[in-house]
Amino acid sequence: MSNAEASLEHLIRVFTKPEHKESTLSQIEQHLSDNLSDFLSRHVVAKQTSLEEIEQDFNDPHLPLQPEFVSTHAETLLSKLVANSVNTYAPTFIGHMTSALPYFHLSLAKLLVGLNQNLVKIETSKAFTPLERQVLGMMHHLVYAQDDAFYTQHLHSAEHSLGAFCSGGTVANITALWVARNAKLAAKQGFKGVSHSGLAAAYRAYDINNLGLICSKRGHYSLGKAVDLLGIGRANILQASVDSHTLNPQEVLALGREYQAQGNDLLAIVGIAGTTETGHIDPLDELADVAEALGCWFHVDAAWGGATLFSDTHKHLLKGIERADSITLDAHKQMYVPMGAGMTLFKDPAISASVRHHAQYILRKGSKDLGSTTLEGSRNGMAMMVYSSLHVLGKSGYQLLIDQSIAKAKLFANMITAHPDFELITEPTLSLLTYRYNPQSIQLALSEGNLDQVAINEHLDILTKGIQKQQREAGKSFVSRTRLGIGKYNNQCLTVFRVVIANPLTTVEHLSDILAEQHHIARTHSDHAVLQALVSTSV
Amino acid sequence: MSNAEASLEHLIRVFTKPEHKESTLSQIEQHLSDNLSDFLSRHVVAKQTSLEEIEQDFNDPHLPLQPEFVSTHAETLLSKLVANSVNTYAPTFIGHMTSALPYFHLSLAKLLVGLNQNLVKIETSKAFTPLERQVLGMMHHLVYAQDDAFYTQHLHSAEHSLGAFCSGGTVANITALWVARNAKLAAKQGFKGVSHSGLAAAYRAYDINNLGLICSKRGHYSLGKAVDLLGIGRANILQASVDSHTLNPQEVLALGREYQAQGNDLLAIVGIAGTTETGHIDPLDELADVAEALGCWFHVDAAWGGATLFSDTHKHLLKGIERADSITLDAHKQMYVPMGAGMTLFKDPAISASVRHHAQYILRKGSKDLGSTTLEGSRNGMAMMVYSSLHVLGKSGYQLLIDQSIAKAKLFANMITAHPDFELITEPTLSLLTYRYNPQSIQLALSEGNLDQVAINEHLDILTKGIQKQQREAGKSFVSRTRLGIGKYNNQCLTVFRVVIANPLTTVEHLSDILAEQHHIARTHSDHAVLQALVSTSV
Repeated sequence: MSNAEASLEHLIRVFTKPEHKESTLSQIEQHLSDNLSDFLSRHVVAKQTSLEEIEQDFNDPHLPLQPEFVSTHAETLLSKLVANSVNTYAPTFIGHMTSALPYFHLSLAKLLVGLNQNLVKIETSKAFTPLERQVLGMMHHLVYAQDDAFYTQHLHSAEHSLGAFCSGGTVANITALWVARNAKLAAKQGFKGVSHSGLAAAYRAYDINNLGLICSKRGHYSLGKAVDLLGIGRANILQASVDSHTLNPQEVLALGREYQAQGNDLLAIVGIAGTTETGHIDPLDELADVAEALGCWFHVDAAWGGATLFSDTHKHLLKGIERADSITLDAHKQMYVPMGAGMTLFKDPAISASVRHHAQYILRKGSKDLGSTTLEGSRNGMAMMVYSSLHVLGKSGYQLLIDQSIAKAKLFANMITAHPDFELITEPTLSLLTYRYNPQSIQLALSEGNLDQVAINEHLDILTKGIQKQQREAGKSFVSRTRLGIGKYNNQCLTVFRVVIANPLTTVEHLSDILAEQHHIARTHSDHAVLQALVSTSV
Repeated sequence: MSNAEASLEHLIRVFTKPEHKESTLSQIEQHLSDNLSDFLSRHVVAKQTSLEEIEQDFNDPHLPLQPEFVSTHAETLLSKLVANSVNTYAPTFIGHMTSALPYFHLSLAKLLVGLNQNLVKIETSKAFTPLERQVLGMMHHLVYAQDDAFYTQHLHSAEHSLGAFCSGGTVANITALWVARNAKLAAKQGFKGVSHSGLAAAYRAYDINNLGLICSKRGHYSLGKAVDLLGIGRANILQASVDSHTLNPQEVLALGREYQAQGNDLLAIVGIAGTTETGHIDPLDELADVAEALGCWFHVDAAWGGATLFSDTHKHLLKGIERADSITLDAHKQMYVPMGAGMTLFKDPAISASVRHHAQYILRKGSKDLGSTTLEGSRNGMAMMVYSSLHVLGKSGYQLLIDQSIAKAKLFANMITAHPDFELITEPTLSLLTYRYNPQSIQLALSEGNLDQVAINEHLDILTKGIQKQQREAGKSFVSRTRLGIGKYNNQCLTVFRVVIANPLTTVEHLSDILAEQHHIARTHSDHAVLQALVSTSV
């Protein structure tokens, strides 16, 4: 046997022989299976290392030449990567939309990789294709509640799609607006359609200067990416109701009419069901009326809030969503599925024809290959995670999860309001809220107009940023921060704490501790003394 | 305790309590860990069920109302989903680009979901961000081999990106062409750039009718999606050298000049390093010259073939790739990483500024958040899989894998050529090849011009399709099929078998058995008799 043959035989073992039960990797797995929370608290270092220090561990651009033992490598992963990752499972991590996940996803992740299906086509996914279509159908039914005949006709039809799975909300929003653009600028007498001839030709054929998209100032940044990518241009995002967190339908109508009168047309109105920063919900039902009046597409970005529909208690907040032409959902948010499970849903199952495409070796005409109408090509079988979650938790389980998140967010808002030194900035419509540290004396002086409001707010911004950073670095808990224009302060842009309540393991005690920690940090922060000095000279 | 509280407490257990070791799900996991191949051969049903039958199992659009036990659900997954999935691990599955994976990915998949990081921003990914940047740096170095100072300056720079991770080659191609379009139609005196003002305005500002993209007829279907999405239009894909599997640089130059002379400009020339259907490689170095001469972007789609660079024996085939402005790579193909690991690489680390975007709560200016320049938003930590593979296999391991695939493909091509009743259609440049069943007597008669070539080929197409389908349904092995215009037959489009050799577990015996099985199916197929009858009347 030659050297190369011996090496190859050795290498092939990596494909066929499992790790020893005593190996580091097997032990990591065992620990994950036995007690995920314990694994994370033991291995994720609480005290933060600076990013610059971590970068030192990931600095080498040269490929490793020789193979490394899996166990040696697993040690490296533990000490360099896991140690400096973020404990998103922790109940005190309430700053972003990632949360603890149900345990069974750990096992399913392994099954998913063991099967390693590719959902672009049936030949590499088989039953995963009808499964994904069923999941889309279930979510479609949750929103649109069509009758059984509708689903019998469309669920597995080669010519129809109830939606498209994708890696996340951004691709879902892009997909929805791509479909909307191509449907709007479709082929007609003397024009072969935007897909074929391009956008400049389409504008000429339809005699329009620009296509616009209307959304609130809380629109997700992916909408900007979408109009950039689609050639529509970021300048054609029209922000209505800029003094508010949500769209005012009358203003949208007026803005739309004015824009149309200038020789433009509207691509879409985008309503948001749960803004990323504050959780606000646009008045969807009224916006659907406005979209009808303006003759444009109505898209609802429900990446965060869509799961509210599972709750009979709260689903009324999303009234009108069933009139949307397309909807974005993220199962990796409030559906507690691992990262990478976005969806677009279409009211009209025939509309995806506007982006349908074919190839010779797959996606042949008449095939049910999912790739014919998705933005992505090869994709993994994440739909299984959603399918399993829907079955194991059930609609009633999801309702409980949604209801307890909203209840906890309201409780937390009450705690903030009741605390003399904190100021609630936005109420929790869903389970997001924003607030800031603002000592009672300053709140009082500000409300009486005794202080230079702009200057004080700017200094409070510095303090908020300082508190957030110090709390994050202490490693016990994490809230995020953002900047919001606030009506009460003449739309001055304020830096605020942003909290997302989603983890079912987060208790009221955790929330109370987080507030106490922030209060303590604030009082001992160097910027606090500066603030006090500023207030005394300002009065 | 109220009913709701009791239910909630029960539900929370799903988030905190692992499954029993004797549970169905734990047993599935154990089986996967102990012997993946055995798990798959026991649970994936070899004999194919029709898609229509499988759809019956995934027909219900109604959400399950009540929670289900995990073990009950796991049984369902086994009987309905796993049983009817595709055994992509099998050494006789040589029809597509999915293959057996190294064992350690099963454990890593669990770790990935246990950590559940979101790589859009550092606050939810920490060390995963520098890790991903390092992986991009390593791949960049493999292609572009810049000096150490280059990587020291750019690898972790907030203002630079050596590339972008994404879910797959399609998004990678779209990202590359998005960057190219925005860089080409950038802001200038009196124009704020295509990203801001849109494509129609950009065409006016730059005084061009259309932007074109040149590629061969073997260009991946994602290029069509990309120009559709980007507003350029499918009509502006210019196929050069339509009689050939690869681009002829002189023809590309002439076509480009002619197109430019008509008031258009070129977005990009796309060279392919390993076409999806046949594995051909465009003359990259010459195409780089042509792109320079025409003043346009040069993109190389190396989704399949990029990994050839690991092999000192074969990397010369990709000469010139280091001159590409951007490159697409898929780690889930010949890097043996699970589905969902695409990459774009940029020669110029500053070029991604053309698609850079910000938000208030993340991706703030100056941050190193990866999401600032990616098409996708929230993404999982697949980069870890690539990082681990690079370390455990090493460059030398990858070289062995690439070399053995190409050697085996050549061997298989020889087997086909040596067999009287098979006809090799395209030689394996890399490890892809195409062929068909074509009995010796007919091959002879065709070459002597004694037969109606078009009619015979059309009938051979029917037979090829029939053989492929029957072999697939028998469930022992899988080759795919495609349609290719073939020069030898006056560019008549033929249906051919398509084989992708990638699985290191595939032996020469497997290949020989697959050929024998096809021969047997052919001889006993009803269309074979029809063919013989046709030949006798045609002579």
